[in-house]
Amino acid sequence: MGSINYSGFSLFNIHFPTKLVVHVEVNRLEKLNAFNRDTWTQLRDIFNLISIDPNVRVVILSGAGEKAFTSGLEISPKSMALLNGGDYEEERARFVTRRAIRDFQDSISAIENCLKPVIGLVHGIAFGLAIDILCATDIRICTSDVQFSVKEVDLALAADIGTLQRLPKVVKSLSWCKDVVYTARVFGAQEALEQGFVSKVAENKQKGFEDALELANVIAAKSPVAVQGSKHLINYSKDRTVQEGLEYTATWNAFAIGRDMKDAIAAALSKSKPRYGKL
Amino acid sequence: MGSINYSGFSLFNIHFPTKLVVHVEVNRLEKLNAFNRDTWTQLRDIFNLISIDPNVRVVILSGAGEKAFTSGLEISPKSMALLNGGDYEEERARFVTRRAIRDFQDSISAIENCLKPVIGLVHGIAFGLAIDILCATDIRICTSDVQFSVKEVDLALAADIGTLQRLPKVVKSLSWCKDVVYTARVFGAQEALEQGFVSKVAENKQKGFEDALELANVIAAKSPVAVQGSKHLINYSKDRTVQEGLEYTATWNAFAIGRDMKDAIAAALSKSKPRYGKL
Amino acid sequence: MGSINYSGFSLFNIHFPTKLVVHVEVNRLEKLNAFNRDTWTQLRDIFNLISIDPNVRVVILSGAGEKAFTSGLEISPKSMALLNGGDYEEERARFVTRRAIRDFQDSISAIENCLKPVIGLVHGIAFGLAIDILCATDIRICTSDVQFSVKEVDLALAADIGTLQRLPKVVKSLSWCKDVVYTARVFGAQEALEQGFVSKVAENKQKGFEDALELANVIAAKSPVAVQGSKHLINYSKDRTVQEGLEYTATWNAFAIGRDMKDAIAAALSKSKPRYGKL
Amino acid sequence: MGSINYSGFSLFNIHFPTKLVVHVEVNRLEKLNAFNRDTWTQLRDIFNLISIDPNVRVVILSGAGEKAFTSGLEISPKSMALLNGGDYEEERARFVTRRAIRDFQDSISAIENCLKPVIGLVHGIAFGLAIDILCATDIRICTSDVQFSVKEVDLALAADIGTLQRLPKVVKSLSWCKDVVYTARVFGAQEALEQGFVSKVAENKQKGFEDALELANVIAAKSPVAVQGSKHLINYSKDRTVQEGLEYTATWNAFAIGRDMKDAIAAALSKSKPRYGKL
Amino acid sequence: MGSINYSGFSLFNIHFPTKLVVHVEVNRLEKLNAFNRDTWTQLRDIFNLISIDPNVRVVILSGAGEKAFTSGLEISPKSMALLNGGDYEEERARFVTRRAIRDFQDSISAIENCLKPVIGLVHGIAFGLAIDILCATDIRICTSDVQFSVKEVDLALAADIGTLQRLPKVVKSLSWCKDVVYTARVFGAQEALEQGFVSKVAENKQKGFEDALELANVIAAKSPVAVQGSKHLINYSKDRTVQEGLEYTATWNAFAIGRDMKDAIAAALSKSKPRYGKL
Amino acid sequence: MGSINYSGFSLFNIHFPTKLVVHVEVNRLEKLNAFNRDTWTQLRDIFNLISIDPNVRVVILSGAGEKAFTSGLEISPKSMALLNGGDYEEERARFVTRRAIRDFQDSISAIENCLKPVIGLVHGIAFGLAIDILCATDIRICTSDVQFSVKEVDLALAADIGTLQRLPKVVKSLSWCKDVVYTARVFGAQEALEQGFVSKVAENKQKGFEDALELANVIAAKSPVAVQGSKHLINYSKDRTVQEGLEYTATWNAFAIGRDMKDAIAAALSKSKPRYGKL
Repeated sequence: MGSINYSGFSLFNIHFPTKLVVHVEVNRLEKLNAFNRDTWTQLRDIFNLISIDPNVRVVILSGAGEKAFTSGLEISPKSMALLNGGDYEEERARFVTRRAIRDFQDSISAIENCLKPVIGLVHGIAFGLAIDILCATDIRICTSDVQFSVKEVDLALAADIGTLQRLPKVVKSLSWCKDVVYTARVFGAQEALEQGFVSKVAENKQKGFEDALELANVIAAKSPVAVQGSKHLINYSKDRTVQEGLEYTATWNAFAIGRDMKDAIAAALSKSKPRYGKL
Repeated sequence: MGSINYSGFSLFNIHFPTKLVVHVEVNRLEKLNAFNRDTWTQLRDIFNLISIDPNVRVVILSGAGEKAFTSGLEISPKSMALLNGGDYEEERARFVTRRAIRDFQDSISAIENCLKPVIGLVHGIAFGLAIDILCATDIRICTSDVQFSVKEVDLALAADIGTLQRLPKVVKSLSWCKDVVYTARVFGAQEALEQGFVSKVAENKQKGFEDALELANVIAAKSPVAVQGSKHLINYSKDRTVQEGLEYTATWNAFAIGRDMKDAIAAALSKSKPRYGKL
Repeated sequence: MGSINYSGFSLFNIHFPTKLVVHVEVNRLEKLNAFNRDTWTQLRDIFNLISIDPNVRVVILSGAGEKAFTSGLEISPKSMALLNGGDYEEERARFVTRRAIRDFQDSISAIENCLKPVIGLVHGIAFGLAIDILCATDIRICTSDVQFSVKEVDLALAADIGTLQRLPKVVKSLSWCKDVVYTARVFGAQEALEQGFVSKVAENKQKGFEDALELANVIAAKSPVAVQGSKHLINYSKDRTVQEGLEYTATWNAFAIGRDMKDAIAAALSKSKPRYGKL
Repeated sequence: MGSINYSGFSLFNIHFPTKLVVHVEVNRLEKLNAFNRDTWTQLRDIFNLISIDPNVRVVILSGAGEKAFTSGLEISPKSMALLNGGDYEEERARFVTRRAIRDFQDSISAIENCLKPVIGLVHGIAFGLAIDILCATDIRICTSDVQFSVKEVDLALAADIGTLQRLPKVVKSLSWCKDVVYTARVFGAQEALEQGFVSKVAENKQKGFEDALELANVIAAKSPVAVQGSKHLINYSKDRTVQEGLEYTATWNAFAIGRDMKDAIAAALSKSKPRYGKL
Repeated sequence: MGSINYSGFSLFNIHFPTKLVVHVEVNRLEKLNAFNRDTWTQLRDIFNLISIDPNVRVVILSGAGEKAFTSGLEISPKSMALLNGGDYEEERARFVTRRAIRDFQDSISAIENCLKPVIGLVHGIAFGLAIDILCATDIRICTSDVQFSVKEVDLALAADIGTLQRLPKVVKSLSWCKDVVYTARVFGAQEALEQGFVSKVAENKQKGFEDALELANVIAAKSPVAVQGSKHLINYSKDRTVQEGLEYTATWNAFAIGRDMKDAIAAALSKSKPRYGKL
Repeated sequence: MGSINYSGFSLFNIHFPTKLVVHVEVNRLEKLNAFNRDTWTQLRDIFNLISIDPNVRVVILSGAGEKAFTSGLEISPKSMALLNGGDYEEERARFVTRRAIRDFQDSISAIENCLKPVIGLVHGIAFGLAIDILCATDIRICTSDVQFSVKEVDLALAADIGTLQRLPKVVKSLSWCKDVVYTARVFGAQEALEQGFVSKVAENKQKGFEDALELANVIAAKSPVAVQGSKHLINYSKDRTVQEGLEYTATWNAFAIGRDMKDAIAAALSKSKPRYGKL
């Protein structure tokens, strides 16, 4: 249970604003935080580490600078070659394309699979890949200046790393969802709030961070056994029948109920604040 | 088709405010209607009876007194022992825990599986188990003073009897849903209405009951074949692909279409009010 | 890739308000656009043709006249006989009923399965079958005078051609959804908007058509490879686990990524407007 | 319930060897019964008709002549063009390929979806498409001279119209199954019998037909309500959880139990032979 | 953990041939062990008790007397009335039929859901319901004189309490499976062995019981944590994707691994025989 | 497409007996090829590399030496600590156990997910983990001296890395499957052959290798596009409904059909041997 070293990630700022809360910020300022391959590989590795880091209970994910959460996938010859099958030809190249998409999907899914809750803090430009990433976070807060766009259709592409799978399960209206997907139009904070895509709108990035941190601290004070279980079980159950979700949940809690519950009850009875071990 | 006797349930008030509408009220006033094992066993038995009672077409479910719908699971040594495996040790105790959770889940699911629509009327404190129960009802009405909380995380527990399975399928925003689950914070009537968790907010419990009863009477005047089928088919279909839902529905209506439809059409043509047989 | 002839459909008006956008309008004015068997057969055939018509990129679906989108299924002896098994008796008749429902379901599903996005424009009366149809469209716009009703329960029938399957996946609140299904009550434009059933409310039918056409033209200018893929993949994924949706999507894009993406990027770099081939 | 006319199918022989049993035989002798597009379109139309033909209770499906059940898909420029996207290019051509495969799959699935049991009688060459078709029949009988081969890999193709989906659910050993798929090797009657792919081996085609007809007559004497239900329910259930299969089956029998059961019991008590109405 | 009393079951013999092994024998000799409603209700109650009885590790299930395991469902006016909806008419009667089937299914499923392995010992007549029951046991042994028949089609009924769901997952060949379902023909021990329906054929009932008991004793000496988990996990996994099965299994073993494993390893290292606590 | 270097794997022998066929042999002779953590990590890494190595078309997997394929999981303090949660206590330790099982499962699944067919060659002792591994291979060949055992129950453990998920889908009889799982008894080559667990029995390891290599060479001469697609599509489809398998397959072949098919047909017409590019 030694502490994990996050210093090797060149494209992200990683620090701990409070104990048990980590702030992960994509940092490619000159590119509006656009993602190249290294960015999504680092993203995956960071969230895989956080998932097992006992010193982290909650994550805040944002983009560096004033202008953008992220402008999306970087359009460079290298990124494109990857999607086009490299040295292979015809159907062989398409095997490679498929594999590249699967890899990229796994990077985004690392956020969802990370056992610690992730709060997405969004400001400025949040295009394409930004939406894929945000759909994989748990709770979303945005600033009033945010510009969202499911941009992929403007690249002549059906979004393939998560938006089409997760967005319809995250927001209120399928009609709205298809509207923003087919048109790739920009929408703002208010519309995102009405649709339930974000839970809160902050005046600016600084205020947004304060909101996110306050929420993170509340969650970080809870039993990590309860919070991590809740995240996993909601994600598991939303995709399955109620009966399957219930059976899996009973099996999960057969191992997850234990000392923390005793501590929580004891604290409640003594009107003290419970303190939970690391996980 | 004789009438069913509901007198044996000590922890519930059960009466018929109008013909074909039953009002079920949990009644442990001194405990803020908290649930012990007997409560949830009785709850299950009541709803299993109602499901086959031809004299009931709609159910209203509420909590007795002014203070609470229910404050949740009673925290008593006996309830806790049950969750902790009784006389068994280690992994054997965990088999018992799992079985106890499964039993408890079945009690809540009895509301969802009851063929008659259930209107949840909520006031005052509605913590933990209250949300599990309400998610299993069909339509929810609350009073303006209601205090909801998905309380389980404060017991260091991932909610395991239905909230995590059903809430994300019931409300508008997954971001909001995770917010209230991870923080266990209290939310009120307005927020519940905005999220679609309740369909209506009433001024107080008395007005809420009038609203619930008016709605219940409307539904009770409809064909029970149509209403019971609709409840079953919505619940079946929301968890499955559209194609699976359609195939099952066609098979269902192959037996369910019959005299009531003829009566409904005849009544429509003669501009009279249809009267349907019991079911 | 010759042009498809839509002249054989007696119960529908079909024309092209702009290039690549087709307007399909049910036209049985004297019956408030009620559907008999021919209507739903023609509906299916029209959408199956549109799905493979390279000259269509977007569809607008509406009802002719001032009074109704559609008043629902025509209650005629012929329609009823079909649902009642024709010459067969007892359980044999019920086999026939089941088959008739399955056929009718397939007509509605033709809208969902059509690869081109469908914008539903609704005005006036929109009862029963109207909701089944609208749930199968992608984006819904209504007029301020619209009267929606999930009418089937008033026919003593559980809705069996799509509403019970699709409506809970389309709107915000399951509580609201069951309310309108069990009561068959009429609801209007504002309620539909709040629930996310429609994306926009227009002053009248003419304005509504202008809105729909503007939206259609925006979508028609996008890559059809991207738009058709997006529709198919959203519909596929909303019914399945995120992982299954992701895997299917990667396999889909392994063939669907190609020339259009190159054209889109080239256009973006040259700040010109991309032009995409037919599909 | 007039009789259905099967005379329009140029590529098949269709006759009734006994009352209620139809014999369908693919008849392109000069091509070893290879399938071109017309063949599979006719196959689909024939089985869709049989499914609702009250004069048919059982089907026997075989290939004409002495040499082959079928040698598979005809390798002609026209067939190949279809799979290669016709006039379209690149990813557009691949949309067309996908659609052509889906159509072809539907033809094969018409055998499985036909409510009447289908007995496959196989002799001589049974390559590629032959296996796809046979997997969709209910019971398979072969002659001792049969030569089976899952031939698609020799066309550099993963079989895409049913073998890969159905064969592993039809036979005993997945290890064997992958062996014959990856190698495309020919296997004979004895191996097919040992693996449970066929239920019986006949000396020659004539004897095989006698066996098939005897079996068909036995089944044709049973209640068609029971037999058609059994076929549908086995196919439905083998792909789903036991619980889902049970729930669907209860719903099915809620309409399917009726007069035939009364007749069967009456006949049993009076030791007479039951006679069942058409379906 | 006091001992459970099985004396209240009038239609079954229940005794313990060896410690930890219970022998359950249906005992309606005069009716060839045919099942009426009481029989299946008692069957369910017995297996629900056994599932939580720490004094039982394995069950042997057989039929009393020399002639029959069971001749199936008793054809009596009372049984038939139940399936025909009692006092209700038309579609209402069919609601009742559906409910009766669901109840009956639950009785059979109690065998599968019982956490203790069940060895079915079959002799003599084993018709209809016999197959439904046997498919729900874990391991089947038969005598050489056994006569199996999936008899339901001869009652003009699609089997609706388990055979159609479980048989195709239990045996080798779907072709064979449909053959015996559609024809209702009798098949014997050798055919059952070849198809894998039974694991062993014994000379007579006495020898069969000795084989069953020997097997039961072997299993009863194993860790009940391991055996009960294995039964549950095989049944869970055979109906789902490999990935779903694996995830559920990991969650299960997160609670189920414990003292028994330590004891097993200690015993192995000391070359002694492990002794496991009750469960 | 440079060649991949397999030299870094200390616990495996890896060589190419023929072009395009790789032979992977676990090599811990002194431990009867038992697996410690390094072994399963290397296993995963090797198969992940092979999956994308264009110089490999088929894999043969075996165990070094005369005595054992593998004796299973090494029972060492270190292996056990891993399963027991390391430094954590109570429910926290169980989170760690669950994670360790998931990691181990992924190693075994790497064999199934490897796009190249894997032939398992088994001799001598094949206990526990051996069966988990073999179930994940495609085709199994054993020697006449092999001793199989699903050994986990003897460790007081429900098998949790694949056997319980895959074995019932791989062999003929569920009754047999549960027999060998619950008893952990040893079974030999003949029984494995009869159940379809292996496709062939060889006299000894040398002959077995010759058989495996001959089979591998046959498969290696086929189009890798066809073979890799077939493996992926069989594995995908066996776990899903036929319809889901068909739809996924059509989407797959929309990209996978191409040059190889043209080459195959050209070779067939010219009666030459096709030569396929690397993949």
